[in-house]
Amino acid sequence: MLRSCAPRLRTLGALRGLTGGARPAVGDAGPALRLFSSEKFIDKDRSLPNPSWSKEIRLLFDQFMKKCEDGSWKRVPSYRYISPQDSKPTKEEGQMSRARIFSRSYDDGLGFEFVMFHNDVEKRTVCFFQGGPHLQGPSGLLHGGALATMIDVTGGVTAVMTGEFVMTANLNINFKRPIPLGSVIVINSQIDKVEGRKFFVSCDVQSVDEKTLYSNATGLFISLDPEKK
Amino acid sequence: MLRSCAPRLRTLGALRGLTGGARPAVGDAGPALRLFSSEKFIDKDRSLPNPSWSKEIRLLFDQFMKKCEDGSWKRVPSYRYISPQDSKPTKEEGQMSRARIFSRSYDDGLGFEFVMFHNDVEKRTVCFFQGGPHLQGPSGLLHGGALATMIDVTGGVTAVMTGEFVMTANLNINFKRPIPLGSVIVINSQIDKVEGRKFFVSCDVQSVDEKTLYSNATGLFISLDPEKK
Repeated sequence: MLRSCAPRLRTLGALRGLTGGARPAVGDAGPALRLFSSEKFIDKDRSLPNPSWSKEIRLLFDQFMKKCEDGSWKRVPSYRYISPQDSKPTKEEGQMSRARIFSRSYDDGLGFEFVMFHNDVEKRTVCFFQGGPHLQGPSGLLHGGALATMIDVTGGVTAVMTGEFVMTANLNINFKRPIPLGSVIVINSQIDKVEGRKFFVSCDVQSVDEKTLYSNATGLFISLDPEKK
Repeated sequence: MLRSCAPRLRTLGALRGLTGGARPAVGDAGPALRLFSSEKFIDKDRSLPNPSWSKEIRLLFDQFMKKCEDGSWKRVPSYRYISPQDSKPTKEEGQMSRARIFSRSYDDGLGFEFVMFHNDVEKRTVCFFQGGPHLQGPSGLLHGGALATMIDVTGGVTAVMTGEFVMTANLNINFKRPIPLGSVIVINSQIDKVEGRKFFVSCDVQSVDEKTLYSNATGLFISLDPEKK
């Protein structure tokens, strides 16, 4: 049953939070799907330019939007809330109950600004990422945890775009060079191998001019499809 | 020269952001130290209880504060800003220039709520962590990137507490079980081996009752002490 829902789940559920570390059991995906049938709830796609974007990331965005015209690449939408429920406080717990997807939890420009493009034939995803001032590690530099988050999200999306729910089982990240806070970096992610339910993904993180390799990483993502072995 | 500054750097600089992925060159630590000689700047220690803390994390805090009385354990302070400069917007860039340390960037209760205790004899650190609603991954669960961040910070502190600046060179994280958003988890981190400038650290992430192993990880942290080989 879940399989037949895959395309819809992919756009509505999976990209709204089903990348990022361990995932819920497959059954848990249902409510998100149902809730999104409500037409009243509008959650802004946050992978579009906003005033905090630098000229550099806008240029890359424009370049890849052009590549989307022949259908070889697709822009990956990205949201703050998994469901309408998350977008408003509940009586029980007040404002603290307003759950946001971590990678979209900051106001424009302060945290994770990114857009991803996916190439279905090549099974790879490119992420353009500009880390805001609330992602600082050492003075003037991006925090390693913020980079790990973006590697997890990009790797997860690469696997999810095959049409399956996945959970992150392992991330192995080499931090090679410090990344200046506010600079634009490019995360390239591809599927190296699929073995049953296991998606083996690799990522590299570079400067826009490709002269600096900031990081490389591997990720193991597991499909939650109960029919797969 | 840097060596002689180590104790002061440790409390003023290193714990303010010098854990978290790649680190700056040693020379960059100077300004932070100087800036903190200004007595006008007060940055709240955020590893103390606030109204968002659950009964469970308060209880653990109290237990370990008791263990601190004989000096065997020490609470590790934790701040939002690396320097007073970061705490106010600059003319050039407006509000966007207000840099915050990633792991302390959220308002109380929304993001990373944690306190760490360090045991110098055993070379180990315990972190009690309560993930707020802005750290969501899949519906109702903690984002893997948020967990990776806390593992990086806890592992980094474990190495930093030896008195040296370090940078993260590698994180290898196994995600074994999903972590409910808002629950309290315990991250145990210890130094397994030191080889020259390399600190090999291991972490496990468990439920408070120790019945659930959520994650285990290794970290490689490199000392930035130029006199070490």
